[in-house]
Amino acid sequence: MGERVRELLQHRPRVVNVGLELFAQAIRQQGGEVQAVEWHPPLVEPNPEALALFNDPAVEAANREAVSRMMRAQPVVVGVARARDVIPGMTERTFLHAGPPIDWEHASGPLRGALIGATLLEGLASTPEEAVRILESGEIELAPNHEHQAVGPMAGVISPSMPVYIAENAAGPNRAFTNFNEGIGRVMRMGAYAPEVIERLRWIGAVLAPLVGQALARSGGIDLRAIIAQALQMGDECHNRNKAATSLFYRALAPHLVECEAPSSDIAQVLRFIDSNDHFFVNLAMVAAKVMADAAHGVKGSSLVTTLSRNGTEFGIRVSGLGDRWFTGPANVPRGLYFPGFGPEDANPDIGDSTITETAGFGGFALAGAPAIVQFIGGSPSDAMRATLEMYEITVAEHELFRLPVLEFRGTPVGIDLRAVVRTGILPVIDTGIAHREPGIGQVGAGIVRPPASCFTGAYRAFERAYLGQERRRRAEEEPVV
Amino acid sequence: MGERVRELLQHRPRVVNVGLELFAQAIRQQGGEVQAVEWHPPLVEPNPEALALFNDPAVEAANREAVSRMMRAQPVVVGVARARDVIPGMTERTFLHAGPPIDWEHASGPLRGALIGATLLEGLASTPEEAVRILESGEIELAPNHEHQAVGPMAGVISPSMPVYIAENAAGPNRAFTNFNEGIGRVMRMGAYAPEVIERLRWIGAVLAPLVGQALARSGGIDLRAIIAQALQMGDECHNRNKAATSLFYRALAPHLVECEAPSSDIAQVLRFIDSNDHFFVNLAMVAAKVMADAAHGVKGSSLVTTLSRNGTEFGIRVSGLGDRWFTGPANVPRGLYFPGFGPEDANPDIGDSTITETAGFGGFALAGAPAIVQFIGGSPSDAMRATLEMYEITVAEHELFRLPVLEFRGTPVGIDLRAVVRTGILPVIDTGIAHREPGIGQVGAGIVRPPASCFTGAYRAFERAYLGQERRRRAEEEPVV
Repeated sequence: MGERVRELLQHRPRVVNVGLELFAQAIRQQGGEVQAVEWHPPLVEPNPEALALFNDPAVEAANREAVSRMMRAQPVVVGVARARDVIPGMTERTFLHAGPPIDWEHASGPLRGALIGATLLEGLASTPEEAVRILESGEIELAPNHEHQAVGPMAGVISPSMPVYIAENAAGPNRAFTNFNEGIGRVMRMGAYAPEVIERLRWIGAVLAPLVGQALARSGGIDLRAIIAQALQMGDECHNRNKAATSLFYRALAPHLVECEAPSSDIAQVLRFIDSNDHFFVNLAMVAAKVMADAAHGVKGSSLVTTLSRNGTEFGIRVSGLGDRWFTGPANVPRGLYFPGFGPEDANPDIGDSTITETAGFGGFALAGAPAIVQFIGGSPSDAMRATLEMYEITVAEHELFRLPVLEFRGTPVGIDLRAVVRTGILPVIDTGIAHREPGIGQVGAGIVRPPASCFTGAYRAFERAYLGQERRRRAEEEPVV
Repeated sequence: MGERVRELLQHRPRVVNVGLELFAQAIRQQGGEVQAVEWHPPLVEPNPEALALFNDPAVEAANREAVSRMMRAQPVVVGVARARDVIPGMTERTFLHAGPPIDWEHASGPLRGALIGATLLEGLASTPEEAVRILESGEIELAPNHEHQAVGPMAGVISPSMPVYIAENAAGPNRAFTNFNEGIGRVMRMGAYAPEVIERLRWIGAVLAPLVGQALARSGGIDLRAIIAQALQMGDECHNRNKAATSLFYRALAPHLVECEAPSSDIAQVLRFIDSNDHFFVNLAMVAAKVMADAAHGVKGSSLVTTLSRNGTEFGIRVSGLGDRWFTGPANVPRGLYFPGFGPEDANPDIGDSTITETAGFGGFALAGAPAIVQFIGGSPSDAMRATLEMYEITVAEHELFRLPVLEFRGTPVGIDLRAVVRTGILPVIDTGIAHREPGIGQVGAGIVRPPASCFTGAYRAFERAYLGQERRRRAEEEPVV
């Protein structure tokens, strides 16, 4: 015994650290050598009763059905309309927003900024101060996009007169809506509402959107899934990098635009606007993902996550087999790269519906195929690779159509299994834009973030309540009588 | 001794095979285990005199100067003109072609087919038979594109009335020319000359090229190097995959096209033609590479290869420090994937000026960044990665502007050093289209090929003759008198 201790002390310690990186760091700081093994504790206590759900064949079957619906949905953008005219349940006094439900009082800076902008855009107020009074009064109803078949990036505000794209599911009955991308920097979705921001939105409503709508009608619809599948082989992950997808959409649209009844100067201006913004496609990527995710929603017994979304204050998720209930937790602040003059102290917590892309198996889940994005969001190409590989641990399928050449054409990880998140403690990886936390400023950077674990533990408890009894009954029925 | 032999026979042999894969295969076929180590013998005998050139600081300096000129050349496409009006030394009876010099008698099927097509296009003959008689008579002068500041893919035929792009070097005095891409399959550059092929070329001359020329003039020029640099981060290698580059060029061109004085139906037709062909940009990638390579040509003492090119019969190279002399060898047949209904027996040997892309540090040299291309040329994404890594062995620099995210933004291997090819026996990797060996048919596939070693050994002998004496004199001068 004394011998073995002496032996131990004669050599430098060699340590294997399982889980928390903090311990490994402490040893490294003292000059020790550490082999780190990645491991997360499960998010919930391993209750033996509940464990049954982890291997329940009925849940497996429901998830297969749900993810199959998700992959087979075929979103096609067919036209453009005024939000109020097409979005179900929207009134002249409804403003839709990103994320789970929230009121003015709890809204973060960028969401407040965008709501002020929308109030000005709608002509309900002529100054930001007046807009704030109206918003405080409660006479505008705030509602989540996700509860109205819609999505919007960052603040995600859609007000009644805004133009929206209409995306249909060519392989099913559902459809979805989204607004137009305004560019980067000082834009309403990031919380800016200066006169030039409102001016640009007016031009989008008066010139861009009607022309794009005409062109889409002439085209007979543009297949968004096909564009995403190609762009994922061209360095995009279609959340924060949409350079290829924007290019492919532009190529598909331009010949029809040229044939529209409009002055060629307007057509050229529309083309230049799209060309000037490599993020133009992100709204279309999102509406495509919304069509896919909604197709997978409402499968009884399925633990597939069908919504990931944030309002700048809270992160919310919804689950296929748990109806329209939100499970929320406080939104985290992304880590990333900042535009010149800004830093982490300027960052608002995570915001936007754009995490619908991760929900549908791309965005952060396809980072391996988008190594150039690290110049925008930080990290290295090998971090991007690791992020995708990790997501296979919490998903139920490899995408049949979204394939990454760099992984030898392996399908992207798709269909987040609530159970797998809870069991492994691995949270979905999200790459995202970063808005300034004050209203009126706009985008300050982009980076990586994860949802709070509490969304998943909360949803999992509800999943247990909904399905555990059922599972037990089924087992009882199946057990032979002895 | 007897003991050790017994010991050897008691175990299965474990073999390390250095070099030729053939030996390793033989052992594997007998169930043996082989660790293969890649090694090529040098291409020339290690003559101790000549070896001095391998480490000659004057050659090193000349190569640094040449590759720096290559990387800093800034090709911008500024307009379109009739070939005869802009290409130096071209007469009404000159047909330019790909590769080193060749006559009708020695021309391969696809080159013959393209020459027949050009004779029909020029209105010099009204049937293919008549065209053959004219071409046999020698009244048309055949000359390499490369000797006229021009390049063309595959057969590469440029006849006097054809429209050509004009690419200028914004960072130097040289400029270069290339023809327009016709699409894939049955096209003249692949040796087809059917009426529809000639008809399409007439439309290109009458509608597409003048409109693109007008748009380029309005644009003030489009920076091709910037497009290539971006496309290399979007899954293109800009030789056989030009999907991103074509998209980016289209985006840059379309607004100017829309503003041209022309019926919108013509503009829409031009946009649809470009959109229908993901290879549209390859000619522009080539003319950009030609501007770069020509900028690096003519540096005294430089062993940098400034031309790689094939006429379908012979492969030819030129070297910066060896003037305009060609060093040739028989062209190899590519290995690759074939279009339905065709196979290796249909393949013509390697043809085209498109290897100018590899000369300038992309194409096959950038395969690591274009893993999706293996669906077109065969092999696997890891083969593509290996190809690029191997090319660092025979190049003098990593490109300052062409960076591959998948290699953590390492620059592409650029500037083939004749000496390194000879020393290592590693031949440049080229990915290429495959033409049918008979005239009149067209493209049958795409694949990978290497030049014949004899181009390089021939050039190296000439390099020795040109510079070895000089190196010896310099050494004698530098040696201290004792």
